[in-house]
Amino acid sequence: MAEFNLIQNYFNFEQDLSKSVVKAIGDDCAILDIPKGRQLVTSTDTLISGVHFFDNIDPADLAYKALAVNVSDLLAMGAKPLAFTLAISLPGINASWLEAFSQSLQQAAQNFSINLIGGDTTQGSLSITITVYGTLKKGKAVLRNGAQLGDDIWVTSTLGSARSALKLHNKDSLSDEQKLLWQKLIRPQIPFKFAKRLNKFATAAIDLSDGLLADLGHIMVQSQLGARLMVETLPLEEALIEQEGIGQARQYALAGGDDYQLCFTAHKKYRKKILYHAEKTQTQVTRIGKIIEQGYQVLLNGEPLAITENSWQHFQANL
Amino acid sequence: MAEFNLIQNYFNFEQDLSKSVVKAIGDDCAILDIPKGRQLVTSTDTLISGVHFFDNIDPADLAYKALAVNVSDLLAMGAKPLAFTLAISLPGINASWLEAFSQSLQQAAQNFSINLIGGDTTQGSLSITITVYGTLKKGKAVLRNGAQLGDDIWVTSTLGSARSALKLHNKDSLSDEQKLLWQKLIRPQIPFKFAKRLNKFATAAIDLSDGLLADLGHIMVQSQLGARLMVETLPLEEALIEQEGIGQARQYALAGGDDYQLCFTAHKKYRKKILYHAEKTQTQVTRIGKIIEQGYQVLLNGEPLAITENSWQHFQANL
Repeated sequence: MAEFNLIQNYFNFEQDLSKSVVKAIGDDCAILDIPKGRQLVTSTDTLISGVHFFDNIDPADLAYKALAVNVSDLLAMGAKPLAFTLAISLPGINASWLEAFSQSLQQAAQNFSINLIGGDTTQGSLSITITVYGTLKKGKAVLRNGAQLGDDIWVTSTLGSARSALKLHNKDSLSDEQKLLWQKLIRPQIPFKFAKRLNKFATAAIDLSDGLLADLGHIMVQSQLGARLMVETLPLEEALIEQEGIGQARQYALAGGDDYQLCFTAHKKYRKKILYHAEKTQTQVTRIGKIIEQGYQVLLNGEPLAITENSWQHFQANL
Repeated sequence: MAEFNLIQNYFNFEQDLSKSVVKAIGDDCAILDIPKGRQLVTSTDTLISGVHFFDNIDPADLAYKALAVNVSDLLAMGAKPLAFTLAISLPGINASWLEAFSQSLQQAAQNFSINLIGGDTTQGSLSITITVYGTLKKGKAVLRNGAQLGDDIWVTSTLGSARSALKLHNKDSLSDEQKLLWQKLIRPQIPFKFAKRLNKFATAAIDLSDGLLADLGHIMVQSQLGARLMVETLPLEEALIEQEGIGQARQYALAGGDDYQLCFTAHKKYRKKILYHAEKTQTQVTRIGKIIEQGYQVLLNGEPLAITENSWQHFQANL
């Protein structure tokens, strides 16, 4: 199969193109119009077989996750997704694998209201680099450096389940609880609708890819402030507690990675407003602590808690 | 070495930031302002060790080429480079390799007036995916579909040298001619200044990555027209003729890849104007044929020439 058939067959799928997409697949470059009064927001992330996912991953899950973790970065800025490019490296051409990957990518793109506008296919070990493009109202980005002393710290959905699921090797004999945790790892439900409202109240935000302590740490460093976490408030799946016990579940919620939920800070006057927007977008949000002057205070019912779990240590880094 | 030191040490280098770069490295996303009346132009390309470059490539050469081949896509649209992201996968951390890579990338970025605004570092086999962002005046993109019947066909610089250099395995004992060919392969001199003037005269353009016949073929298909090439006019390095003989040199110019020069079409009334802009930007341009109704006519002194060289067949494709 020649290279152009590969594209025609699998990556030139039907999509409702945004009117901002002037030129998609088919030329040296894609062209985007950025509406007046808005800015371009962009990020790129790579997923590599054996590092970020298991070699035998279902191609449909892979396509979903590769797009979701990139859109997650747009959400953490309060941006609206617009477009993405896909650079995929494949060991060879496997029609049924590509078919499943392509269909899932098309579905995920539709769900996230984002258009595939170009990319590159190469032969090599399996890896995927997606670059996402979004827009936001000029000057309205929610950055990492905006947290204020006394702000509440919030997270969306639940934490720690993906870290627990990393240990599930034999997928054929999973309990119902384990299946739920597994879904959290392979199909992270990013807070797509809620994030668009983030700039109405958030002073800072980050998406949780490396674990709460590590990622909230970036907000602390860039805002030159500290954080107090009330560990008893951390949102945990019942299935995670069943599987790990409450102590280990909390450790995973603090230090596990791959959650792809949002952590954000906001003035306490917005508590009602945040709950209102969460309800309107059917999003679970939980207040888990507050911004203090310096350092980390990780407290369980008022007493310091030792962190026994290492932060998700991979070699990956967002520049 | 932790991930953030990797970024701080090697990829957060000093650069003269464009005023359109609102936020570069350091948050979930980068932010760009697109000036009024301009559009965003973007493209992504992957280079993989063993497919697009030799395993033992000099890291400085690799950094230069990875950026140049991506900027080349912007040039082929007539766009002005603005920014790029770098997703790099490395087998491990080698300080002297990273130092050389980073210095060369910084230098190349400065030469091409383009800012590094973000990216991703991961552990894996060596590969580089760069996404470039440029701008152009709204509606002024030079696309592949604009060629007109009777247009001249032009190329910049010389062709075929990179294909010949691919055969040079023992770099320690190169003749002067071979050294020149080698430079054409590893340090392609993209027509940076000339390309900015492309939309003053060109009806269609493409950058030559897969070889003249293959790439001009995209213009023909998208413009629904054909092309006549006068093979005796193809611009060839003296060193290439010395190394390969004139017959093989022409075959490489027609079908070899990796030249990263521009092929463009223009009305014959612009011949003087094109030569003027070429001189002003110190760029070699050559008229090599014309657009006809359909099909390829590859003529040497008026007689059909058989193509003995296969097109640059790799698995890579631009979506």
